[in-house]
Amino acid sequence: MQISQRNSGRGPGRLTVVSTGPGFPEYLAPKARVALDAAQVVAGYRTYVDLIRPLLQGQEVVATGMKAEMERCRAAVDLALKGRRVALISGGDAGIYGMAGLVLEICAARRLKIAPPDTEKEVDFHLEVIPGIPALAAAAALLGAPLMHDFVAVSLSDLLTPWETITRRLELAAQGDFVIVLYNPQSKRRNWQLGAVRDLLLKHYAPETPVGLVRRAMRAGQDVAITTLGKMSDHEVDMQTIIIVGNSQTYVYGPYMITPRGYLGKYEVSSEQLEKIC
Amino acid sequence: MQISQRNSGRGPGRLTVVSTGPGFPEYLAPKARVALDAAQVVAGYRTYVDLIRPLLQGQEVVATGMKAEMERCRAAVDLALKGRRVALISGGDAGIYGMAGLVLEICAARRLKIAPPDTEKEVDFHLEVIPGIPALAAAAALLGAPLMHDFVAVSLSDLLTPWETITRRLELAAQGDFVIVLYNPQSKRRNWQLGAVRDLLLKHYAPETPVGLVRRAMRAGQDVAITTLGKMSDHEVDMQTIIIVGNSQTYVYGPYMITPRGYLGKYEVSSEQLEKIC
Repeated sequence: MQISQRNSGRGPGRLTVVSTGPGFPEYLAPKARVALDAAQVVAGYRTYVDLIRPLLQGQEVVATGMKAEMERCRAAVDLALKGRRVALISGGDAGIYGMAGLVLEICAARRLKIAPPDTEKEVDFHLEVIPGIPALAAAAALLGAPLMHDFVAVSLSDLLTPWETITRRLELAAQGDFVIVLYNPQSKRRNWQLGAVRDLLLKHYAPETPVGLVRRAMRAGQDVAITTLGKMSDHEVDMQTIIIVGNSQTYVYGPYMITPRGYLGKYEVSSEQLEKIC
Repeated sequence: MQISQRNSGRGPGRLTVVSTGPGFPEYLAPKARVALDAAQVVAGYRTYVDLIRPLLQGQEVVATGMKAEMERCRAAVDLALKGRRVALISGGDAGIYGMAGLVLEICAARRLKIAPPDTEKEVDFHLEVIPGIPALAAAAALLGAPLMHDFVAVSLSDLLTPWETITRRLELAAQGDFVIVLYNPQSKRRNWQLGAVRDLLLKHYAPETPVGLVRRAMRAGQDVAITTLGKMSDHEVDMQTIIIVGNSQTYVYGPYMITPRGYLGKYEVSSEQLEKIC
């Protein structure tokens, strides 16, 4: 612990992990905007920082490259320890494969005393996470309503998780007829995974199962496609693509992918009854 | 199909499913606000409609009770067919156990020709879903970072899904060491389920596994608690509570619940390495 970096006398600092949502600034919550305005320092991945620059009013900026997540989280923590108000930005939702976890892991490893704002006064700094619209919700909205029933989110990145754990989870999800959201489906190094995932899921799901692919949701270069599980790996995907694999109930209607709410066919929502009612 | 209700000559109507996020209006995306402003009619569950009333400027309002989901979706569709601009509001994210699916199911059952705005001109009406911050992201933010690794979302409501399907999914999720998000954990009628879920999960997860309970996130009456799987069903929960059950890696640090990003202990984020680096 670096005592010399500790704040002295100006009251505790504040570290706010700010989710910026899928598209900026149309999907930035007013609460996130307030946190940016109140910050003295804004830290983040260079690409995201550049997107919010038009909103900044003289805040100090700490922008780092894609693989420097640890570096910018540590910088944000150090600045908050010095008593500053820091906003650490994270695309989508900071709590889903975003920056919230790493910041908290660093605080825990350093045994820092942290608490939400407006609670304890005797802290090293106050820490708050502001949620945002996750990439999975943005992708689902562009596809229609594919997530209307139970779903799983699985990252295909095997940098921090063994590939065996990832495939076991996908296998179990498919046994449970879950809708499956795939994060980080492919990188330049991992260009073989999507075919492996397709083959694995085909053991449980029909080749005609609808699959939605959404790249850069609500941003320049947005691309939305609906295909089938059998053809899933024919499409071009990258680390910015979210893939949603439907379950046994999912169907395509025009440009929309729909997972019905119910399995029972009772209540008002079975399609036969809908025909009568509507 | 009610041809008499069809729009005649004023150009196609528009139905926008507007997610209002967890707390209103701090978490309402600017894009959602624009859709509300542009609407001629706002439809929704009475409680949510009342929350947004201060934002309305003379729009017609269709407010219905909690179980009248079908009624208000059908009303929204009928109004859009008449050429009107309709905003159907949905709390949290409309695409996760929200209104987006039912609207699309109705359109499909009626064989209506629908498409996103700014695409095809020859439609019965244009339909768009605006995503919002889901309850699971709001709850996760208040708890810290419990969703930083692969997770499942499961609704415990057995109104439209057989209880056997629900428990089978929970069993598979637990086998996969997923973080588990429970929606609709209890109602007055279903007051026995949470104990059953605890017993089921205890077959795979330790009794000390952290569990977060969040009620009315970012709204009046917000309640955030962290407990353990063994004690989960001792807490008071209702239909507005989101429960997040950690996985084998999840830990509690002060008032925060943290699921680490990695299983490998390599990269920079193992706690041993963090101690050295930080």
